[in-house]
Amino acid sequence: MSITTTTIAASTTSTLITNIASLVTNDSSLGDGTPIGLIQDAAVVIDGDRIAWVGETRKAPATDNAVDAGGRAAVPGFVDSHSHLVFAGDRTQEFNARMSGRAYSAGGIRTTVAATRAASDAELAANVARYLAEALRQGTTTLETKSGYGLTVQDEARAVRIACDHTDEVTYLGAHIVPPEYADDPAAYVALVTGEMLDACAPYARWIDVFCEQGAFDGDQARAILTAGLARGLQPRVHANQLSYGPGVRLAVELGAASADHCTHLTDADVDALAHGDTVATLLPGAEFSTRADWPDARRLLDAGATVALSTDCNPGSSFTSSVPFCIALAVRDMGMTPDEAIWSATAGGAAALRRQDIGRVTPGTRADLVLLDAPSHVHLAYRPGVPLVSSVWRGGTRMF
Amino acid sequence: MSITTTTIAASTTSTLITNIASLVTNDSSLGDGTPIGLIQDAAVVIDGDRIAWVGETRKAPATDNAVDAGGRAAVPGFVDSHSHLVFAGDRTQEFNARMSGRAYSAGGIRTTVAATRAASDAELAANVARYLAEALRQGTTTLETKSGYGLTVQDEARAVRIACDHTDEVTYLGAHIVPPEYADDPAAYVALVTGEMLDACAPYARWIDVFCEQGAFDGDQARAILTAGLARGLQPRVHANQLSYGPGVRLAVELGAASADHCTHLTDADVDALAHGDTVATLLPGAEFSTRADWPDARRLLDAGATVALSTDCNPGSSFTSSVPFCIALAVRDMGMTPDEAIWSATAGGAAALRRQDIGRVTPGTRADLVLLDAPSHVHLAYRPGVPLVSSVWRGGTRMF
Repeated sequence: MSITTTTIAASTTSTLITNIASLVTNDSSLGDGTPIGLIQDAAVVIDGDRIAWVGETRKAPATDNAVDAGGRAAVPGFVDSHSHLVFAGDRTQEFNARMSGRAYSAGGIRTTVAATRAASDAELAANVARYLAEALRQGTTTLETKSGYGLTVQDEARAVRIACDHTDEVTYLGAHIVPPEYADDPAAYVALVTGEMLDACAPYARWIDVFCEQGAFDGDQARAILTAGLARGLQPRVHANQLSYGPGVRLAVELGAASADHCTHLTDADVDALAHGDTVATLLPGAEFSTRADWPDARRLLDAGATVALSTDCNPGSSFTSSVPFCIALAVRDMGMTPDEAIWSATAGGAAALRRQDIGRVTPGTRADLVLLDAPSHVHLAYRPGVPLVSSVWRGGTRMF
Repeated sequence: MSITTTTIAASTTSTLITNIASLVTNDSSLGDGTPIGLIQDAAVVIDGDRIAWVGETRKAPATDNAVDAGGRAAVPGFVDSHSHLVFAGDRTQEFNARMSGRAYSAGGIRTTVAATRAASDAELAANVARYLAEALRQGTTTLETKSGYGLTVQDEARAVRIACDHTDEVTYLGAHIVPPEYADDPAAYVALVTGEMLDACAPYARWIDVFCEQGAFDGDQARAILTAGLARGLQPRVHANQLSYGPGVRLAVELGAASADHCTHLTDADVDALAHGDTVATLLPGAEFSTRADWPDARRLLDAGATVALSTDCNPGSSFTSSVPFCIALAVRDMGMTPDEAIWSATAGGAAALRRQDIGRVTPGTRADLVLLDAPSHVHLAYRPGVPLVSSVWRGGTRMF
């Protein structure tokens, strides 16, 4: 937990942040000894791109640079492990009609697929950069994003390539839906996704994902797609059990997927599989909020012993929020999470869903991703819903604002 | 709708804002002719502290200064007609315990009363200024606020005096609860509220309010309090029907109150009274969000013909949000409002609840309170929940950021 004062003082890149009213470390060996390892009146030393020291302010070592947090709370940078940012087009009217109870001949995902195919590379890249910057202003320092609105070899490949220019956590989701041109022959589309399209996308992606759902891909198709990805070195994650009960969650656990995402409709067997497997349950309340659907039951998963992550699902159709704080507030209000559980899930939980050890915690050796809040406690993320509380962000040791 | 180009150009204080993707005017004689009077590809001329002209960009007159809105949407500044900002103290642990299902010997409002009485004038003033600034950053250009955490002659008087230094819309709420020292003799407290305390507060307040609820003040007490306020020139508004059915709403309508606030538990007779009276129904979904209560039914009120306002109820106990955009998102998701109805209620509705004609609309002659959004449409306030979309704010013709 500590390094010597001499080491820190000798570095010209070290910064001491003092006067942190409360610090969420997510290291249960620190502070109050709970899973969030809460330290009161805390300080943090950043050395280069890493956390070098955390503890109480009165024990802090001297460094070259000092920042007074002014009694603000600090939390690890949010890890948003599920978003769909490589898209073009606008679905405002579809949302407006849905929420206003008016009929609208919406094409759903297909609308976005058509707009994305028609967009230039520069437009898509600008969109990704814009939403990443927006998320950063709200405290997100790691953001996974996916393809899935191209659905041709060329369009999926450029989606993962563009994503790859902006984040390390890129997911190939050729299996988002069966595109209209394959409506009569979904097997041929699965063959494309597991063949030529996979070949084109694999170099740019870390993950492979499939939307396992009625109307998208069934359990057998999902298994074939994820297995093909695994054979190419891509690690699986699954859109599972969002709209209905189904095989997605159990398939995810069986294949050792890092995450089963949505988990809104779960049988006892699904919960049991998540509790005993190595797959994180990633809950995405923005989707339930924006489609007026029933909430996933985080309490049930936590009580069973499952690992829960909390992410935005940011996409233009079903969940156009990029705000992790908003998702925390919903999780506390409507999903049975305590404020402590929610902050853990949005940071360490997201890191677990990406199988990352270097992020999601503020403890020596981890990447220096830190958020200061205009509030004395992380509890305010739920206590003050909708209020933009993020005051400053460090990412990889660099103060972004 | 227009003034001559010469008039505008001759003024050195006029500013033309062009390239507004869509403008909510709340003037049904403009644009699409709906209650929100939506103009596409709009421009606005601000002259001094007033709106001088609105219309399509291609028809805009020349002015000395020009601002390119960059395709952003514009809406009237939010009118938050219900908040409780003159307070001190912290109730984070009470909130945390409530949402975590843990017992907590919370004193509720009494906790805040004790802290507020103990605070200095400077502390209270700093708190009001802080939350007003926070609200402004989120697009609120008019904000009503109340006393109600002092509950002595001296503490209530300083509360309205401090509020008065920060906003024109000040409400005397000596009748928030019966303070502990009057627990055995509530009639004596009502006598104080309608006597010496009223005398001390009336010079600083425009409004008188009472919490008409089981455990606070009953119908007879509320009538006595509001009637006494009316006799001193204060206009009535009522905390009505929040936690249970009761006489509050009908009393408000009977006395011609500007607003009945909360309106969560309404009988058909209550709805009918609101629909046919001159009292606005002000809904405060932040309170239901933060206490896990049932939502007020905006749809029922709108369908009956009532005027509905939407505000934050910002206070440290039951609704610590200062975000009108958050309340709009909740109203659309959970209260049956369309995005158009919600933006109207948060602007023109709030103005109606304060009996103001000069705010809540963007039409010639009104005060130049204007919000630019990082979005092409006001619908995004619901479509992108939790995302801080407010990009720039003009208040009284001055660009605040």
